[in-house]
Amino acid sequence: MRDFSGSHRWLSINTATLRAQWPLERIIGECAARGIRAISPWRDQVAALGLQRTAALLRDTGMALSGYCRGGMFTSPQALSDNRRAVDEAKALNAPCLVLVVGGLHAGSKDLVAARSAVHDGVAATLDYARSVGMPLAIEPLHPMVAADRSCINTLAQALDLCDALDPARSGALGVALDVYHVWWDPLLQAQIERAGRERCSRFTSATGCWRRAICSTTAA
Amino acid sequence: MRDFSGSHRWLSINTATLRAQWPLERIIGECAARGIRAISPWRDQVAALGLQRTAALLRDTGMALSGYCRGGMFTSPQALSDNRRAVDEAKALNAPCLVLVVGGLHAGSKDLVAARSAVHDGVAATLDYARSVGMPLAIEPLHPMVAADRSCINTLAQALDLCDALDPARSGALGVALDVYHVWWDPLLQAQIERAGRERCSRFTSATGCWRRAICSTTAA
Repeated sequence: MRDFSGSHRWLSINTATLRAQWPLERIIGECAARGIRAISPWRDQVAALGLQRTAALLRDTGMALSGYCRGGMFTSPQALSDNRRAVDEAKALNAPCLVLVVGGLHAGSKDLVAARSAVHDGVAATLDYARSVGMPLAIEPLHPMVAADRSCINTLAQALDLCDALDPARSGALGVALDVYHVWWDPLLQAQIERAGRERCSRFTSATGCWRRAICSTTAA
Repeated sequence: MRDFSGSHRWLSINTATLRAQWPLERIIGECAARGIRAISPWRDQVAALGLQRTAALLRDTGMALSGYCRGGMFTSPQALSDNRRAVDEAKALNAPCLVLVVGGLHAGSKDLVAARSAVHDGVAATLDYARSVGMPLAIEPLHPMVAADRSCINTLAQALDLCDALDPARSGALGVALDVYHVWWDPLLQAQIERAGRERCSRFTSATGCWRRAICSTTAA
């Protein structure tokens, strides 16, 4: 496995980690000043700065996005219209993908099967729209401790199974995003990362950004 | 699926749930008075009452055990000698199985692979001894939120894979214990319960108690 730790080349800052310190405008400036080439911003931070102003600032500083946080929450009302807006914003910001945190149980429900079914249908509907504008979607499995509240997709295998169901052609329109904080415990993690490399990286184009290629390189090495 | 909810026949009280209210002697008496036919006691509660006194009280009240809590913690020092004592106690109490909570990371370590390897070896060694005295072991997968601290076995599939590795003949000496609190989120839960029914129930004898047969009946129905 190659060691990227001595370089900023593969580093992207999730702007939620600096939310308490700085507004997005300052985060972008501070990252650019330090040679950090990419961020993954959140919708509310972009909304506070303004979508067009954010896009202009990214262009002016040469800052790339590794992803846009986030779509999903398919078990909430108005999820589909909200996800269309998230796709449009991701497109305006030239993001390589929209990250999906898919949502937990429906309000007041304990029906996990129904939640997962709604997530399947919600990702499918959002994928139809995202394909039409050329914005890839990335399903992020979250730790089972938040299965009821934030995401009923809790393992990489489950996320990849959903990719297989909704994008069997492996078109590059649907993939996964991995956060070590959420997946470190998974006994199938290594095998499923290798599966992701085989099934979901080979068709990625340069349009999806260097971070995905980094994941492919790392898992292939 | 059959409905057992109207009967105490398949009910067993885990005595940890009454720890704050009563000592074990009173728990056994109160359960017996209410027609509850089984408990799953913890080692420290048994130690406080005395092993032989507990065994006598169980006989006198006609109270059965559904399991004995607990062995495991294979990433801690002195685990193997402690597990032999736990097996002996389970035998003295006529328990149908010793439940294993296998342990998390070694102290000061972040090496999950090493922890899982130690668990494999620890269950193997304990199984050798447990077989020799005729005490089945039941591996209990715990929720991933306690993977670092209490159990690096976190899914039913992982527990059954370990059973396959250590008891490929499906002798009945090794099985699983399931707690809904720990496994409800698992996307493979139903399929793996069906696997457990196929792989780990068919060879169970009457010596392993009615609770295991209840699990088999339920999953087969």
